[in-house]
Amino acid sequence: MKIAILSEAFTFNPILDDLKKLGDVISYDDTTTEESMIERCFGVDIALLNCWVSPLTHNVIDGLTTVKLIVTNTTGYEQIDTSYARSKGISIANVPGFGTESVAEMVIGLMLAIDRMIPLGDNQMKKQPFWVDPQNEEMKIFKGFNLNDKTLGIIGLGAIGMRVAQLGNAFGMHVIGYNRTTKDIPFVKMMPLEDLLKESDIVSINVASTSETIGIINEKTLSLMKSNAILVNTARDNLIDVDALYSALKNGKIRGAGLDGIGLSSSDHPILKLNNLILTPHIGWYTEESGLNIAHIILDIVKAFLAGKNLHIVNLKANLS
Amino acid sequence: MKIAILSEAFTFNPILDDLKKLGDVISYDDTTTEESMIERCFGVDIALLNCWVSPLTHNVIDGLTTVKLIVTNTTGYEQIDTSYARSKGISIANVPGFGTESVAEMVIGLMLAIDRMIPLGDNQMKKQPFWVDPQNEEMKIFKGFNLNDKTLGIIGLGAIGMRVAQLGNAFGMHVIGYNRTTKDIPFVKMMPLEDLLKESDIVSINVASTSETIGIINEKTLSLMKSNAILVNTARDNLIDVDALYSALKNGKIRGAGLDGIGLSSSDHPILKLNNLILTPHIGWYTEESGLNIAHIILDIVKAFLAGKNLHIVNLKANLS
Repeated sequence: MKIAILSEAFTFNPILDDLKKLGDVISYDDTTTEESMIERCFGVDIALLNCWVSPLTHNVIDGLTTVKLIVTNTTGYEQIDTSYARSKGISIANVPGFGTESVAEMVIGLMLAIDRMIPLGDNQMKKQPFWVDPQNEEMKIFKGFNLNDKTLGIIGLGAIGMRVAQLGNAFGMHVIGYNRTTKDIPFVKMMPLEDLLKESDIVSINVASTSETIGIINEKTLSLMKSNAILVNTARDNLIDVDALYSALKNGKIRGAGLDGIGLSSSDHPILKLNNLILTPHIGWYTEESGLNIAHIILDIVKAFLAGKNLHIVNLKANLS
Repeated sequence: MKIAILSEAFTFNPILDDLKKLGDVISYDDTTTEESMIERCFGVDIALLNCWVSPLTHNVIDGLTTVKLIVTNTTGYEQIDTSYARSKGISIANVPGFGTESVAEMVIGLMLAIDRMIPLGDNQMKKQPFWVDPQNEEMKIFKGFNLNDKTLGIIGLGAIGMRVAQLGNAFGMHVIGYNRTTKDIPFVKMMPLEDLLKESDIVSINVASTSETIGIINEKTLSLMKSNAILVNTARDNLIDVDALYSALKNGKIRGAGLDGIGLSSSDHPILKLNNLILTPHIGWYTEESGLNIAHIILDIVKAFLAGKNLHIVNLKANLS
């Protein structure tokens, strides 16, 4: 059994010893060209990689004549033609759910960071330490609201949204939710999206990016929100219309937003000048524990495959249209 | 019954109508000199003020010949000679506990802000948006840890510390505590301070500033902490030896710190250059709800006083030494 690690080798380090018990393991620095992909997989049975770093094009798939299983260390895999891989007898597996806790905690972190203007405070304090003076109009921006007793609206009650709901509940928030299919959760009141947006003091977006959800936060939906409401997005950036959000933040239609990633390629957009927007570089998932989860889920996938079982295989024949 | 509002009049606005039902209310802009204090209190029975804005010196107390009750809209009142006021027949009341929820939530906010490096991310994203790349050594600073399953050590289990304990517990943290007097709390394991510092992944300081606690975080106590530990202080800044903290942060003796206020008067200290320190301008208490709590506690104090009862009077004869 030959196992090749083709990219992001560091993510597989925690399970390297375990993998070596299952077969011969070769580990490479990032493999980024079609030629090197094919060359390095010669005689290989299982390839482990990051599908954004190592291109799984039709050419590459054609060239992987011995590979039976490819595992990408990511949840998303939309650039892989999984049907084509299946037609060549290759199973593709992904790694779902590794960051549920990390992302849910990040939601609370962004919520409090924008509510209490922590980055702005840090920035000003490092120039010149001061104490907030509630009589100073310019300092009113630091006046937050307690999460306790506020209404938290969660768009998308998957694993992450559920954990956000639990944490919000612990803060004493009233949790309301919107989901494509209805969910029966004791402390979450399900309702249509429009009602959720009208009632929420804080809105957390926790849906996957699909044709139905892309741009779900736009001029129309933003106009339904309360003027003192906070928007938090730790899901994909394309769920938000950036220009509409800019206008809403700039004109006080909502109070603030915390986004873990934004759909901008340049630093020219005026939204980047706003104090009532907090941005982070898509780090919601990025914790020590998420890294370990990724490695151990991959180990489980490989072990299952060797035992003739399918774990997290995304292109089972039965599921392909 | 004459009631004078002498400073921070805006804090009393939520109860102004209620106060007017209890007596004649005169409201002033900040009264900051001894002369104007005495002049504006001529014939007044109850004075409402902020004791940091309006000086309650011996001279002033001597001059308040008709005043029977002074309420400061603050918790701290250490600059008032309360015994002297008692000797002149004046009761002094303070406003305790108005910010329990706000401050406890701020503790969680600072914890996550430093764990996930939210201000640094915001700062860098606003210069040029990017996605974190875990292979890039420079971006490893953004790798956090999950709060879940970590150990949270709370120094001081008063009302705020208790609420922090509850919230930490909800995140799935193991909560340990140190308190001058032992407390019996189901989900908090009490232990000596040294043990707490050794075992904690996150330390939250929630004690009052007293001769026993000033400088409680110093070179010696910092040296007991884990190298990946986070320190959060939402209590008084003098609990921390800033130079010792600078050295610990700079040399990786601890991972990071989030402080709601710092004991520095100038912007020259090198601690202000550190990325693994987050500072906020003493805003833990500063929410809409805290403001309302202050006003309503004051109304209760005045009502109680008029009914011949003592509420939050800090200089009752029996308590003065």
